[in-house]
Amino acid sequence: MNDPHTQAALDPDTLARRVFDAMEANDRVFHALGMRLVEVESGRAVLEMPVREDMLNGHDICHGGMIFSLADTAMAIAANSFNQTAVASSADISFLASALKGDVLRAETDLRSLRKRTGLYDVTIRGRDGEVIALFRGRVQRVNAKVVPDLPGPTDNQ
Amino acid sequence: MNDPHTQAALDPDTLARRVFDAMEANDRVFHALGMRLVEVESGRAVLEMPVREDMLNGHDICHGGMIFSLADTAMAIAANSFNQTAVASSADISFLASALKGDVLRAETDLRSLRKRTGLYDVTIRGRDGEVIALFRGRVQRVNAKVVPDLPGPTDNQ
Amino acid sequence: MNDPHTQAALDPDTLARRVFDAMEANDRVFHALGMRLVEVESGRAVLEMPVREDMLNGHDICHGGMIFSLADTAMAIAANSFNQTAVASSADISFLASALKGDVLRAETDLRSLRKRTGLYDVTIRGRDGEVIALFRGRVQRVNAKVVPDLPGPTDNQ
Amino acid sequence: MNDPHTQAALDPDTLARRVFDAMEANDRVFHALGMRLVEVESGRAVLEMPVREDMLNGHDICHGGMIFSLADTAMAIAANSFNQTAVASSADISFLASALKGDVLRAETDLRSLRKRTGLYDVTIRGRDGEVIALFRGRVQRVNAKVVPDLPGPTDNQ
Repeated sequence: MNDPHTQAALDPDTLARRVFDAMEANDRVFHALGMRLVEVESGRAVLEMPVREDMLNGHDICHGGMIFSLADTAMAIAANSFNQTAVASSADISFLASALKGDVLRAETDLRSLRKRTGLYDVTIRGRDGEVIALFRGRVQRVNAKVVPDLPGPTDNQ
Repeated sequence: MNDPHTQAALDPDTLARRVFDAMEANDRVFHALGMRLVEVESGRAVLEMPVREDMLNGHDICHGGMIFSLADTAMAIAANSFNQTAVASSADISFLASALKGDVLRAETDLRSLRKRTGLYDVTIRGRDGEVIALFRGRVQRVNAKVVPDLPGPTDNQ
Repeated sequence: MNDPHTQAALDPDTLARRVFDAMEANDRVFHALGMRLVEVESGRAVLEMPVREDMLNGHDICHGGMIFSLADTAMAIAANSFNQTAVASSADISFLASALKGDVLRAETDLRSLRKRTGLYDVTIRGRDGEVIALFRGRVQRVNAKVVPDLPGPTDNQ
Repeated sequence: MNDPHTQAALDPDTLARRVFDAMEANDRVFHALGMRLVEVESGRAVLEMPVREDMLNGHDICHGGMIFSLADTAMAIAANSFNQTAVASSADISFLASALKGDVLRAETDLRSLRKRTGLYDVTIRGRDGEVIALFRGRVQRVNAKVVPDLPGPTDNQ
């Protein structure tokens, strides 16, 4: 795997998928909250998560923290898809509508800025009938380390 | 309980405690994530949450969504403590340090602005040795309804 | 002008233009900073502003406050275009690249959520060669009053 | 000035003042908007700005962009006070009350996090009678360069 010729042969979307496979196997929250990958490609991810009984707050609607968790995870998958470690530095979320038990939330990322050390991602979270439930904007710091050492990454030539 | 004389007899901090008792009994996320109330008074709450194995992300640190969930819950308790329903409209969070499995996170709210229809709360989240892990700022919309119908509230005279 | 038939005859984009004409005639900052309207329609606005010498900061680049002012003004024009008064309640801005003296900044709004009492707008600010300089996301509170009393508005039937 | 013994002799607050003197002499917006330094020390700044006629918006209140400009400038002074160049990467502001012509706005910074490459500052903006007008939270990226080459700085030993 460390043969540079093998590494160079990976197209960006395949790399994104391999990083996801390695990283999410280890993401306890991804599994505990029942998230499901819909799409992953270089710099982009789509996730789904059904709203369960244990995700409700005292007003009987989906807890904002669960919606944030889904969006944050989608950003993490997109932001690490280049196989350069990215960690969230800040994020803001606007809650526009409620989600109820049984609704399937869908989070889709949109890469807005990518620089050597930083990235900015918008994530739209939709619920029943495609209604926009929340808008998330997150910023990541990119560090000089691969997510998966055995795969190629932008730090190979640094 | 609906006797106005009984209602008027409740001091604000006792009211805050009663609203918490009623609301959090029903908050599935509060219980599922193992949150614990440390303090609640009128307009203010302190919560703790131990970081569990199932709260870790793919980098083996506490998932940002779990930290957000704790802060958002603390704000909800503080913001509903007047027995007027408040729902989060937006929030931003800055992640300053990592938390590891076994760390006990502590979230403390600070009411910065309270108006008839809106409120703004800062929440500081600390980890091991009191280190600041994250800073959260949330905004709520206050609606014209009590959280607990049988308790007094600011909407009694509206 | 108060004849309801005349009022009903205004299409939304013409109304937006008339509100702009009345409101911006009185916006001292719009004029002081040399902003120029490129487009206005119902719920949307595009502005331009050349970066002047007196808009630079100590690092010799355009001051972030000037970029924010442009974006905030574009949002205000879009948010008031329905002739229902809207005031900014919060906003966040991410600075992605620098602008220099002589660059012409262009701010374009995108309405993401509109409800009876709140609205959310994204504004993209571009500089030289269309490069994205900053991303702005603002939230408004909509109050129960017209911007221009003599024009029709959503509060006519409330 | 480049004698290391001279440089080492500067205490942090004197350094902060010298950096301000050099940087703000060149800050065109600081002067154009009539800002006045009240205090500067290491990592902290207080500014004042009277609201002028040309700072009003179409609703006859102080334009949000002018309030943001004041807060952003206060952060810039605090964040550069260590003589390591810091540039704003993102900021959010919540508008809590209006300011009118003739009010004197006062912005006071509070350093919440300082790391090698990033910093986070809260800025409280008060108006007439000390009322909180707005709350600002900004994040800076710290780059590996001095603001004033002839003064000592944290990059001297890097």
